[in-house]
Amino acid sequence: MPELRKDPILGRWIIIAEERGKRPTDFLVEESKVKGGFCPLCPGNEKTTPDEVLVYGRQWGDPNSSGWKLRVVPNKYPALIIEGNLDKQGEGLYDRMNGIGAHEVIIETPNHDDRFTYLPPQDMLLTFLAFRDRILDLAKDSRFNYVVAFKNYGKAAGASLEHSHSQLVALPILPRMVTAELEGSLSYYKYKDRCIFCDIIRQEMQQNIRLVCENDHFVTLTPFAPRSPFEMWILPKRHHSSFVAQDDRSLIALAEIFSETLRRLDACIPHAPYNFVLHTQPLRSGSLDYYHWHFEIVPKLTSIAGFEWGTGFYINPMPPEDTCRFLREVTL
Amino acid sequence: MPELRKDPILGRWIIIAEERGKRPTDFLVEESKVKGGFCPLCPGNEKTTPDEVLVYGRQWGDPNSSGWKLRVVPNKYPALIIEGNLDKQGEGLYDRMNGIGAHEVIIETPNHDDRFTYLPPQDMLLTFLAFRDRILDLAKDSRFNYVVAFKNYGKAAGASLEHSHSQLVALPILPRMVTAELEGSLSYYKYKDRCIFCDIIRQEMQQNIRLVCENDHFVTLTPFAPRSPFEMWILPKRHHSSFVAQDDRSLIALAEIFSETLRRLDACIPHAPYNFVLHTQPLRSGSLDYYHWHFEIVPKLTSIAGFEWGTGFYINPMPPEDTCRFLREVTL
Repeated sequence: MPELRKDPILGRWIIIAEERGKRPTDFLVEESKVKGGFCPLCPGNEKTTPDEVLVYGRQWGDPNSSGWKLRVVPNKYPALIIEGNLDKQGEGLYDRMNGIGAHEVIIETPNHDDRFTYLPPQDMLLTFLAFRDRILDLAKDSRFNYVVAFKNYGKAAGASLEHSHSQLVALPILPRMVTAELEGSLSYYKYKDRCIFCDIIRQEMQQNIRLVCENDHFVTLTPFAPRSPFEMWILPKRHHSSFVAQDDRSLIALAEIFSETLRRLDACIPHAPYNFVLHTQPLRSGSLDYYHWHFEIVPKLTSIAGFEWGTGFYINPMPPEDTCRFLREVTL
Repeated sequence: MPELRKDPILGRWIIIAEERGKRPTDFLVEESKVKGGFCPLCPGNEKTTPDEVLVYGRQWGDPNSSGWKLRVVPNKYPALIIEGNLDKQGEGLYDRMNGIGAHEVIIETPNHDDRFTYLPPQDMLLTFLAFRDRILDLAKDSRFNYVVAFKNYGKAAGASLEHSHSQLVALPILPRMVTAELEGSLSYYKYKDRCIFCDIIRQEMQQNIRLVCENDHFVTLTPFAPRSPFEMWILPKRHHSSFVAQDDRSLIALAEIFSETLRRLDACIPHAPYNFVLHTQPLRSGSLDYYHWHFEIVPKLTSIAGFEWGTGFYINPMPPEDTCRFLREVTL
C-alpha cells in the first residue's frame, strides 16, 4: 500500500510508492533514451495493460480489443491505489495516510510513432475530452480532492514509454502548487476584486510582447517570470475556474491552440523534452471568481540546475520576450 | 544586467540571467558527462578566474598565485552582479528589480581529482569555514537579504565543472524555500511554543528508525517525508537559527558528520549526483527561537519525474526507514 506523508514544516505532501525489492544502486541507471522494443500501449497488446476505463473510437469489438482511437487504462505501476480507506494517522508530530488515489494513463493515439505535437487538432481533442470525462468521473469519489492531469514528453522530462501518452493522478490532498496558486490569486482578488489571471491576459494583450498566439477562445503567453526558457501558459480568455466546465466548442479551440503552441516550440527546439500540467480548481469546489484554469508547458532543458528544485529559486538564461519572439517568428 | 522578476500569483522570484546570443537550439545539447580538458579551477590557472575574494592555506606568494588549499572567486558567468542599485520597478501588475547580488565559487581543493566526499574532515572543514567567512562578509551589504550556499555534484545535479567546488549566491530577496520554512516553523512555534526542528530531533532520537548517524553536536536523518530516495538532513542538536553563529568546534563536528554522511551515501550509490543546500536564517535577522539551521542533501536520481517540479508533488519509490537502514548498514 503506498503512503502519503506530510512534511511538518512545509506542509508538503509526498507519496511513498515503494517499488519492492529495489536496491540502492537500481536508482543509478540513467538511460538516455526512452525504452524501445515491446510496447504495451500499441494495438494488439491491449491485454497487457489493466482493463480500460474509457475508450474512444472503437466501433465494434470487445473491451480491450483493438480498433480504438484513444484508451484510458489504470497505470500498471500506480503511485496510488484505488481500493481502501484514507486511514489518516499521526506518528508523534508527523502525519500520514494511506496512499488512496487513482493513477491512469491516457493512450493518446493507436500509432506508436505519432507525436502529440503533430496530431491533427481533431485527434488531439480526444485527449482533452478524456481529461474532462475522467476528471468528472473521478470527482464522484468523495475521497479525492484533486486530479492532476499532465504529460511528460521525452526521457529528460520523465517519460518512461515512447508511445504518446499522458497521465491522471487523483489525490486525496491538494498539491502545494494548487494551494499556493489558490492563495495567491485569492489574496489579489481580496485586494482588487478582480481575477489576477484576467488582469494578466488584459495586460499581455495590450503589451503584446509575450503573446505567442491566440484564437477566439484562448491565448498562449510566455509568462513574465518563467522558470525555464520557452515556458508557456495557455489560458482561456473567458473567466472560468474549472476545466471540466468547458463545452466541446471550447475544447476544440483548446486543441487548435495547443497544437499550434507545441508546433511552434518544436520548430524552435526540435524534440525539446517538456511537461505540461493542467491547473484547475479542486474537485467539487464550485465555481471560483478568483481562480482561472489554464495549462502550463515547461520545457525541461539542461540549463536548470539541480539546486533550483530544492530552493524554489530559478535562474533562466533567456527573457520571455526573446523566447516569445523566437516562437512567433518560426514558419509553421 | 540580469533581472529579478516576481511571479504575481505565487510570489516566486526568478532571475533572468541572459546569456547573450544564445539560440533556442543551444539549450538542447545535453552532455552526459561534466566537461574535461582545461580546468580553470586548478592551481596554475588562477589568472583565468576573476580575482579571489578569500583564500586559505597560501603561506607566501601573491594573490591569485598557486600554493592555496581553498579559494573563493566570483563566478565568471554570474547569475547576479555586484555593482549597481536595486532599482525596483513595476510594469502594470508585474514587479521586477535589477539583478544585484553576488555569485561566488568555492574551490574546495587544489587537487583536480579529489572528491568532496573523500576529503579528510580537516580539509572539508575549510569549505564550511569559507561559507561562514563569506556569508559574514556579504551580510555587511545591506542590499542583500539572503545567501544561498549550495553544492551541485555530478552533471545530473547541475555541475558544469569536474573540479570539486560549491557556490554562494547572495540575493536581495528571500527565495520561496526560505519564506515557506520560516512561515511553517513560526506557525508551529506559535501553537506549541517550541522549535519544530528541536521536536523533530527529539522524536527521531527516540524512534531511532530514520537516524543515520550522529556525533556530539549533530545528527543526520532521513526525513519523514523525503522528496527523493536517500534525501538526508544534517541538523545541529543545539538550537540555533544561524549557521554563521557557529564556532570552530561546531564546524569541526559538522565536517566530521558531513564526511561520514556522504561516505555512507557513496557506499550505497557510488557517485550518486546530489545537491546540498544550507538552510539558515535571513541575513541580519537576529537569532530566531522558531527556526533551526541545517543542511539538506538531495540526491538527484532518475526516478523523479519532471512534472513533480511543476506541481510540488513528489513520488518517492523508497521509504526513508529503508533508506536509513541501507545507509546504516554499509561498511565504511
